[in-house]
Parts: sequence; C-alpha cells; structure tokens
Amino acid sequence: MSVKVAIIGASGYTGGELLRILATHPKAEVVAATSREYAGKPITHVHPHLRGYYKLMRFVKVDLDKFLDSDLIFLSLPAKASINYVPKILESGVKVVDLSPDYRLKNPDDYKRWYGIEHPHPDLLEKAVYGLPELHREEIRKAELVASPGCNSTAAILALIPAIKDCLVDLDHIAVDVKVGSSEAGRKPRAGTHHPERANVIRPYEASGHRHVAEVEQELSRLAGREVKVALVPHAVGAIRGALATAHTWLRENVDEKIILRSFISTYRGEPFIRIVRGPPVGYPDPKYVIGSNFCDVGFAVEERIRRAAFMAAIDNLVKGAAGQAVQSFNLMMGFDEREGLSFPPLKPA
Amino acid sequence: MSVKVAIIGASGYTGGELLRILATHPKAEVVAATSREYAGKPITHVHPHLRGYYKLMRFVKVDLDKFLDSDLIFLSLPAKASINYVPKILESGVKVVDLSPDYRLKNPDDYKRWYGIEHPHPDLLEKAVYGLPELHREEIRKAELVASPGCNSTAAILALIPAIKDCLVDLDHIAVDVKVGSSEAGRKPRAGTHHPERANVIRPYEASGHRHVAEVEQELSRLAGREVKVALVPHAVGAIRGALATAHTWLRENVDEKIILRSFISTYRGEPFIRIVRGPPVGYPDPKYVIGSNFCDVGFAVEERIRRAAFMAAIDNLVKGAAGQAVQSFNLMMGFDEREGLSFPPLKPA
Amino acid sequence: MSVKVAIIGASGYTGGELLRILATHPKAEVVAATSREYAGKPITHVHPHLRGYYKLMRFVKVDLDKFLDSDLIFLSLPAKASINYVPKILESGVKVVDLSPDYRLKNPDDYKRWYGIEHPHPDLLEKAVYGLPELHREEIRKAELVASPGCNSTAAILALIPAIKDCLVDLDHIAVDVKVGSSEAGRKPRAGTHHPERANVIRPYEASGHRHVAEVEQELSRLAGREVKVALVPHAVGAIRGALATAHTWLRENVDEKIILRSFISTYRGEPFIRIVRGPPVGYPDPKYVIGSNFCDVGFAVEERIRRAAFMAAIDNLVKGAAGQAVQSFNLMMGFDEREGLSFPPLKPA
Amino acid sequence: MSVKVAIIGASGYTGGELLRILATHPKAEVVAATSREYAGKPITHVHPHLRGYYKLMRFVKVDLDKFLDSDLIFLSLPAKASINYVPKILESGVKVVDLSPDYRLKNPDDYKRWYGIEHPHPDLLEKAVYGLPELHREEIRKAELVASPGCNSTAAILALIPAIKDCLVDLDHIAVDVKVGSSEAGRKPRAGTHHPERANVIRPYEASGHRHVAEVEQELSRLAGREVKVALVPHAVGAIRGALATAHTWLRENVDEKIILRSFISTYRGEPFIRIVRGPPVGYPDPKYVIGSNFCDVGFAVEERIRRAAFMAAIDNLVKGAAGQAVQSFNLMMGFDEREGLSFPPLKPA
Repeated sequence: MSVKVAIIGASGYTGGELLRILATHPKAEVVAATSREYAGKPITHVHPHLRGYYKLMRFVKVDLDKFLDSDLIFLSLPAKASINYVPKILESGVKVVDLSPDYRLKNPDDYKRWYGIEHPHPDLLEKAVYGLPELHREEIRKAELVASPGCNSTAAILALIPAIKDCLVDLDHIAVDVKVGSSEAGRKPRAGTHHPERANVIRPYEASGHRHVAEVEQELSRLAGREVKVALVPHAVGAIRGALATAHTWLRENVDEKIILRSFISTYRGEPFIRIVRGPPVGYPDPKYVIGSNFCDVGFAVEERIRRAAFMAAIDNLVKGAAGQAVQSFNLMMGFDEREGLSFPPLKPA
Repeated sequence: MSVKVAIIGASGYTGGELLRILATHPKAEVVAATSREYAGKPITHVHPHLRGYYKLMRFVKVDLDKFLDSDLIFLSLPAKASINYVPKILESGVKVVDLSPDYRLKNPDDYKRWYGIEHPHPDLLEKAVYGLPELHREEIRKAELVASPGCNSTAAILALIPAIKDCLVDLDHIAVDVKVGSSEAGRKPRAGTHHPERANVIRPYEASGHRHVAEVEQELSRLAGREVKVALVPHAVGAIRGALATAHTWLRENVDEKIILRSFISTYRGEPFIRIVRGPPVGYPDPKYVIGSNFCDVGFAVEERIRRAAFMAAIDNLVKGAAGQAVQSFNLMMGFDEREGLSFPPLKPA
Repeated sequence: MSVKVAIIGASGYTGGELLRILATHPKAEVVAATSREYAGKPITHVHPHLRGYYKLMRFVKVDLDKFLDSDLIFLSLPAKASINYVPKILESGVKVVDLSPDYRLKNPDDYKRWYGIEHPHPDLLEKAVYGLPELHREEIRKAELVASPGCNSTAAILALIPAIKDCLVDLDHIAVDVKVGSSEAGRKPRAGTHHPERANVIRPYEASGHRHVAEVEQELSRLAGREVKVALVPHAVGAIRGALATAHTWLRENVDEKIILRSFISTYRGEPFIRIVRGPPVGYPDPKYVIGSNFCDVGFAVEERIRRAAFMAAIDNLVKGAAGQAVQSFNLMMGFDEREGLSFPPLKPA
Repeated sequence: MSVKVAIIGASGYTGGELLRILATHPKAEVVAATSREYAGKPITHVHPHLRGYYKLMRFVKVDLDKFLDSDLIFLSLPAKASINYVPKILESGVKVVDLSPDYRLKNPDDYKRWYGIEHPHPDLLEKAVYGLPELHREEIRKAELVASPGCNSTAAILALIPAIKDCLVDLDHIAVDVKVGSSEAGRKPRAGTHHPERANVIRPYEASGHRHVAEVEQELSRLAGREVKVALVPHAVGAIRGALATAHTWLRENVDEKIILRSFISTYRGEPFIRIVRGPPVGYPDPKYVIGSNFCDVGFAVEERIRRAAFMAAIDNLVKGAAGQAVQSFNLMMGFDEREGLSFPPLKPA
C-alpha cells in the first residue's frame, strides 16, 4: 500500500534526487512531477540517469487541484516561488514538505530581513515544523507542514547540537566555515558554475552574511535558551556533492575531550542517520564517506593548548542536505519507519 | 530466506562494492569477508562509508574450510591469486563467481600467452561460464563457476554485440578506444594514481596490447563465427568511476543507421540493465548517467560520408564492470530475479 | 622595440590566453583588445588572473580603423564572426593571424559543406597559410594571413604527420579518437558545461562528423599526395585543459617499431615545440605534461600481434591548440625567434 | 651574468617547481640538483614536463663539498632532513634558502615542542630570517640564511597582517580555516592521496594542532607586540594546487569596512606580489586566479550585524607557498629585482 506524493519543482537537482529516492521507496508512489520549463517532456529528458524508472511519466505544469488527491506534496522550488501554494494545499488536508526556506523561520521579521519581502502567511510560520528530525522528531510526526532545511543549515546545526545543548562552548564566538560542492548551486548554468571556472575553486561566497545563518541561529538559540549569533562563511570547493561544516569554537572551563565525546554519544544515540566519527582510518567527518546517502557524519577536534574545539558535520548536500532529509520527514509524517527508502549505503569511491 | 555468501578479497574497491550491494540485497547474507592485510580489523576500518552496516563484522583470513557452508563464494582477487581455490570450492558443492580473469579464457594457451603462466586447471576452463548475462544468461543459470568480466571487456563487448552479431561492420578493422576512471586501478596507491599525478590526466596505458583484449576477441569471435581481432587502447581519464568504450568501425555495404538501430533494439530488447541511448538531451552513452548503478548505456554514431560508425558503451566500472555484474550472475545462479538487489538508480550529478 | 598587436575577441578563453602570453612577450605590445560584451570594462574584470598586468587597459568595441596602426591583428572569434574583417585589414597592410576556422580550408566548397555558408572571400583562401609551423614554417614566415588551427586538428595532424609522410599506415582505415578538457568549449556557460554536468564526464560529441575533420583531411591528403579520409570522434573528459589525439591505424607491410621511431625522429628533429615521448616514467603522450606550455608531446604504440599502431599527440588546447600556436606564427611572421615569449615550461602538477 | 645555485631535494614537487621557475630565471643557473632516490637519473625522468630544459642534467647525491662553489643553495627537504647541512654551508660562505621548517622558529623550545627533537643549532635560529618579504624584506636582503615559509603559514599570515598590525580585531579569538590542494602533501603516494580517495574530499586533518601554527603565532605575536594564539584547522579539498586561508575574527570597537580597506591598502601598497581583491566579478580571493604564479590575493568580508570579519589570502601552494617565495628571497639576497624570474602571470582556467 503506497501513499501518493506529488513533487512541485522536479526538474532541478533536488527534484531529481527526490525522484531517485522515491523510485525505490517501498511505500511511496510519485503521481505527479512538475516543471514549468519542461512540462510535457519525459522526466528522463531532464534526468537521463532515471531511464528505466518513471518510464511513461512526463513533467506537468503546476495544477494544485489535480495534486490534491496526493497524500503529501513536496515543494522543491527556490525561495518565494511556492510560498502561496502552502495554505491552499494544507486547506485541502494534504500534507506538505517544503524544501524551500519559506517556512523555516519562526519570526516573520527575520523572513523580511533575510528574504526581502513580508511573509504573506505569518500565521503558518508557527505551525510549520523545522524538519530536522534530530531536533524535532516528535513534532514532525504530527506535522502537516514541515519546512525541510538545506545543506548549510543542516551541517552547521548538526555539528553544533551537542556543544550548544550541553553548554560546552563560549556562545559568543562561534564561526562556522562551510565547504560545499557545486550541485548546491542548482541545475541552472551560470558564469560561476561553468566547469572551467568552477573546477578547482576554493571560493568564499556571500561571506558577509549568508541568509541561511538565520535558521542556524534560530535553532541554536532555541537549544541554548538564549540568543546565539553565528558567523557563517560558505566556500565553494572542488566537488559535485558534499558539504562540510567546521564550527570553530572556544571551550568553556572544565570541558575536555571526554566530556565532548560523552555529549556526542548521548545526543546522537539511536539516531538512524548520524554516525560519530572517531579515530582511524578516518579521523574526522568528510562528505566523501556519505555521498549518495542520508547519513550525517559528525565529529570534533580539540586543541587543548589553546582551549579550542572544532566541531564538524559532513553530509551529501542533495540527500541529508535536501531530498533525503525531506523523505525522512515524509516517513515520520506518514508513520513509516524513518529509514524507509533511505537505507542505501553511501557510494565510495565517488 | 537468505542465501549465504562469502567474499574472498573484500578490502579492495571491488570487494567494497560487493559489500555495498549485498548490504541491501534482500536475499543474500554476507557471512565472511577476507583480507590478508586487514584480517582482524572491522570491515568499516577499510570501508568507512559502510559504518552502520556490517557492524560487528571483521575481516578474516582465507580459510576455505570455514567458508564451505556458504552457498556461493565471490572471488575478488587479482589474476592468479585465487586460481587454486576454485577446484577445491567446487568440489565441496559451493558455487563460485570469480571476478578475477583466471577462468575467463577458454583456451589455456591464451591464458599462458597473456598471463605468463600455465593454467593449473585447464579442465575447468570449459566448465566456467563467461559471466556476461547479455551473452550467456542461460548457461549462467546452470553454472557452478562463473568467470565474471571486468570493465574494459564488458564495455567493449556490449558496445559491439549488435555490430558483430548482425554483421554490420568490417571485422578486420575494429579499434576500441576505452576511457576509464581511476578506481579501475584498484585500492593500492601507486605513483601513477597519486592525486596530483592522476587528476586531469588523459593517459594512454598498455597501449601495445592490454591483456583484456583476449577475452573481448574470444567472445566476439564466438559471436561472429570467425576470428575477430580487435585493437584495444585504454586511457586513464579524470574521473573516479566510469568506463566508456568507443569502438571505431567501418560499415559493410548497405548498412545504415536504421539497420543499426534495429539491430540494437532486437539485440537488447528485454535486457534489464541495457539502455539504448538516442537523441536529446544526451546523444551518446556517457558513464556520468550510470554511476553507482548496474546499467550499461549503449549507442552509436554513423558518419555516412565515410561509411564509418562508432559504437559506444558506458558503465560504472565497479558495478556493471565488476561487483554489480557479479551479483547479477549470482542472482541467476540462485534462481532469483536478475535485478534483485540491483534496482537502485544511478547517482547524478556525481 | 616592440611590435604592436591588437586582439579582436579578447574576452574568451583564447583571447585571455593571448593576453597572458603576450603580457610577457619581450617583443610584442598589446595596444587594443576588443569585446562586444565587455567594452568599457577593464580587462581584469573578465580576466582577474591578469590583475597586475594590463592595468589601465579596457576592452573596446571593434573599430578596425583604429587598429590599423598595429603591425598584426589576432582574430579570436568564432567561425564566421570575423570573416569579413580579414580583407579590410589585409588591404591596409596589417597582417592577420586568424584563430577562427574561417580561412583554414582551401576549397570554398568544403567551407560551404562544413560551415553552411558560401565563403565571401574565396580568393583569400589560397593566400591564407595554414598556421601549423611543423608543416608550413616557410610559408608562414612570408604570410600576411595565417589561419591558425585549433586543438582537435593540431593534435590529430601532429600525431599523424610521420605516419602519413613516410607511408607507414593503411590510409583507408584511420580513426582518430580525441579527448579534450572543458576549456575547449569556450567561456560561455551552457547546460553541458555546468560543473555538476561536466565534471567526470566521458562524453562523445559531434560523433557523426566534427567539422574540424575537414582541415585534418586537407592537410593529411596534401601530405599523402592522395585523398585521405579520417574518422574523428571527440570526447569531453574530466579536465579543464588538455587535448589528446589517439590515432588508431593499421600498419603497412614491413613497417615496424624501429621504422616508426626513425620516422618520428627525422620528422620532428629540430622542432622547438615537439617532444617525442618514449619510455619511462611516462610511456605515452599525456596533456598533463604540457599544460600551460606550447609543447606538443608525440608518441606511438605498436601492437605487433595484429599489425596495429596508435599514434598520439598531447597538447594544451589553449596554448599549442590555440593562442600559443598563434603567437608562434606571429613570431615567424615578424622574423622573431619562433620561441619568443613561448619559452615557459609546462605547469605540473596541475 | 648568472649566479650559480644548487637545489638539495629536487625530486619532490617543491624541487620540481624550483627547477621550473629557475629554468627561465634570467640571472640564475642551476648547477646541481640532488635526489637520494633518483641519483644518476635524468631530471626529466622525474619531471617529464621539463623535457627540453635541463637536457643533460642528472640528479646527484648530496655532496656538500661539490656544491660549495654555488652562490646559494636551496634546501627543499622535509623537516629535520637537512638541518645539519646549514651550518656547514654557511661556514663556506654560501647562502642558504631553506624551504623546510627547521629554521623558522626563533625559540628552540618551540622547535622541540612541535618537531619533537632538540634543535641541534639553536644559535642559528636567531640568525635565520623568516622568509616572508612582506614582513622581513630588508632583513632578507642582508640574510645569509632564510627560512622560507610554506603554504599554510604564508596564507594565514598574509591574510592577517593588516588586522594585527593595525589592531582591528579581538586577538583572543582568531580561527584560521585553511583549504589546500593535494600537491601540498608532496610527491610520495599514500593511502590518503590515492586519486579515488583524494578526489572530491573535504577532509579536515591535523585538526588538533597543526605544527605550522607555531610560526604563524610567532610572526603575528611579533607584529602585535603581545602573544597571539591562533586556531588553525587545515582541510584537504578537491584541487591539485591552491591554498586559501579564511581567518574568522571579531572586530574591535569602531572598526568598520572602510578602516579595514585602508589598512589593507597601506599595508600592501607597493608589494609586487600582493593583490587586494575587491568587487566584481570576483569578490574574494580564490586560488583559482593565482595558479602557477607567485601572487597572493588578499581580501576580506565584514558582517556588520555581528561585528565579525573574515580575512582571506589565496596562493598557489607550490609557488608563493613554496618555490616562488624562495626565489623571491633569493632575488633579494642577490640584490636582484624581487620579481626577477617570477613575472609570469597565473594560468587560468586551470
């Protein structure tokens, strides 16, 4: 017995990844996939790797009325593009996992500050659940609207949860240095993603304030019980997939490596997609070991000499940083085993 | 009800890929995995991406007696290393899928010429089935010993089957230009695979006669009903996974594009892992679209002006060119659906 | 005493490479660089790596009258874009090195067949010299118009000159398999050059007849004294720079490895930018060893068993395959040492 | 009139880069190049890209007596390997540029702490000049022994000089996140540099205290006039060449973007190899734009909201981070123009 899902915005990389994952999900059936640009074309025209799956299926234009017999709709469009679909879908009793940032911030003022427009449905912000199961599992189970986080935020938050939750670090000096692969920028070619320009770069971007810092601060502040401000500087590096957050912090008194390890273990015990990385042959998290999977590898390094610690989290930006995490929430919302359709191991070497 | 399998040689890339695929195979259970170098160490020490799978499992040394309660043993060692295990295993009634080249050549003289030693078990060469399901499906079903082909041969043969079978090309002038990613060279670091040396190369190797040409010629000759000699020049190119064979040929009289297409369709109709690539957005096979999967994409280009055709086949060298193909044979030998455990889509972009 | 040069089409990769090379050329001064798109912007806006060079210089629009006090003009635009500039420039007594394919073919019918339009100045085709110094050095010295070849043709021809000139191979079965890096496609982003799509590809393109085959056939036919038809299949591979041509051929009777080597040595003795590659540690040409330089490494592999030989040539597509070769012709035309401004070694590892 | 130089340790990447640069240096002649492993072999056996240069030259074993008619000796060996050569060379009146870390730290205790052995020549530590011309130009001119810094330190220090010198940031919270290409690890293949393992990584290493932090702290403390402790976490990323340091800092009161820019301009005015990067099309330093050259691009990003600034410096790790910087010091020591032999532009795209 499958549940029916529709994907709005299925021609991008995140949409493609939803299609890839759902193609072998034992309890979900994709009944519609939209694309404004490719409506009428076969799904495999845009996603040739999926030849052999979705054989007869073509992209359609968005027509909410037709999608409302789905059990759940994934919204996989950029900020603002699907913001007004949400209330209509919810009214019809269909659940939503929104992969855009539109419903992630609780405070409408924050949305305005970072996204430049008044949020048209501020009432729904409270209702929306931030879709990080490691923080909000029980709420997600009951949610009708999940705002599923992207790669920078997922990596930054998962790296820092133990440190914040267990008061291990100076909350006033946290700098998160993020490195991401090129697929993070989406499927649309631009000057900066042209292969000769993008290959081999080590390129800081939006270094004066990336908008995703807002949700990182929101979630960490909630966890800390006080306001936490975070410096977040993303860097484009030479990979297609993968995101690593390295959070540079200073330790509070009496905190040492053992305490940190204990905090990680107690925080992440039982989490199906979190793996704590310690010791050889791989000392620290590296996206290399999670590519293609929904895992987040977490770890840390302490430099006792100067009372500093670096906390790291590595993900595949398109899976745990996007489509996989959305399916994880979908599973919870449907009452399925959280791992359903997500149990495939990482692909390595790749 | 799972069948039990052992993997001899499980610490290399092909062994790792067998472990990855079998981790989610619904009908197989890995009961032993050997490594001379890492015996006693956890499997995840060598394959950290598999953390969360094979949790309690450690590499062991080869001890055939202990493995003989398996239903089937995968041999995943270099040429000559496991050649003497085979008769012993077969005598015990355990089936073998050998991923080494040791049992691929029918003629013991060929083995001597290309591998430099007398074959110690020439009687078994006849018994062994060349593990390309697209050519030998029915024999594989009944086989006790399958000699599973590697990436160069798989790509070269699958590109050329229609042309040879249907007499489309001049058999005296076939040049197969192969391009492969770095994982093809295995897990052991060498000067030529050091990242600064290997990244960005376009490097011909063994260009005066690669030993895998012997099996390509064997299979194509059998298909043609006469001796076929093939020039095969492999090139290392800038990728981790992937192999593309481009077979340059000259067309026989009256052969045209339509006839070739018809030949491809009739040859590969119903093949679960062959996809014929035609037209936009992707005109020709490219390993990019099969990475992580067991698919082989095939296609061709005709240059009518000079009566030439190029036949192409693209695979993931570690899957359809190694571990995936071995599992495909395993499925056939066990009477399972050929696609069991192999239905995962390619990972793209990657 | 510098000579003055102008570059028409200086914002692309080839234009950027001309600017790079000429920045340290001891006898040339760039007095104008055009760009339709970036006119008015500093050169370093488009070529930030050149900050510190061309400090006060800005792109201008094409205004031939202003450029005619140059000693020579480089045309670095796509096919057809600058075809009508040439007669006007020549009439003013200014020399031209044209990096487009517009004046490479001697036969106006060939131009029409491959480029789709009547050539507007067929009389100039005879006058133009094909700018491969290894074939036409003396004519280039005296030329007013040099049609400088691109990367596919340069690599294909330089790989095959000895074999054709010395009658070593069957002229009816030559298949040239070319592999190139992404910079070959130019500076304009497209779907196929988007980093996630382009990285790691092994992608055949224009496999049914690439237009550059026309000039390869022209030059090889001239050399052979009879018509030579060549199959040429380019492949995009995972690198930014670099092109390798592997020409698959069948040997004529009595030709062996020694004879081929002797042919290479006699053909290329004294050539300042040709290096014959033999033996360890690098057996065959690989663009890896010429990146950033004007060298072309050539070599070959013989498979005596089937009387086959592969001839290879490796270049940096933007240097010997474009801007460097154009400067080499410029040097000859100006009576300079051919190596002037081109003596920098390759960059490795890169 | 050339000066004579010898290179001890010329078979590694840094040695190869010294050979590349000196091959076209108008005032230097390499008279000897050593390699323990390759003694007797042609230089081009190890550095095939240099075929055509150093034609008759072969590697020799170290024999200091023979090298003492050189004007200067470059030591390009790992830590500790050449530490005892230095006094002997200096006694003979030959100057030394040591690219190892052996003479970089002023305090012998620091050497012991970070390198694990007593420094055998502590008296020479005072005499040695830290070879960063941007800090010690005048001392380098007069020096007999220059300890030339490596890539992590060069990038970290050059990113932070203005901030430290002009008291712009909180000195107690500085975290330097470094990203480097694979050539940084040298020419010897290891498990972690095997192409399938190294390509696409985002891998933190030595994250609990990289030994190069000692020299960063030494130089910054000297500049600050008080002790400065720095957190430095290096990451291996997907490139061959290139290093970027991103220094995460918190601004002191009243410091704003204008003040920072003024500090950068006044600090780096007239520096021949420092380029301040501001604004489009490239907002921040990226090694992409300096590959192959001796430039260091510096820049910064301010996030006023949280009073944070990131300072960045991008270099080619083998040039400004190794061989190029050593030649820069060599030029100063010989009384040459600092840019001699180093005026080649970066190679891009590459």
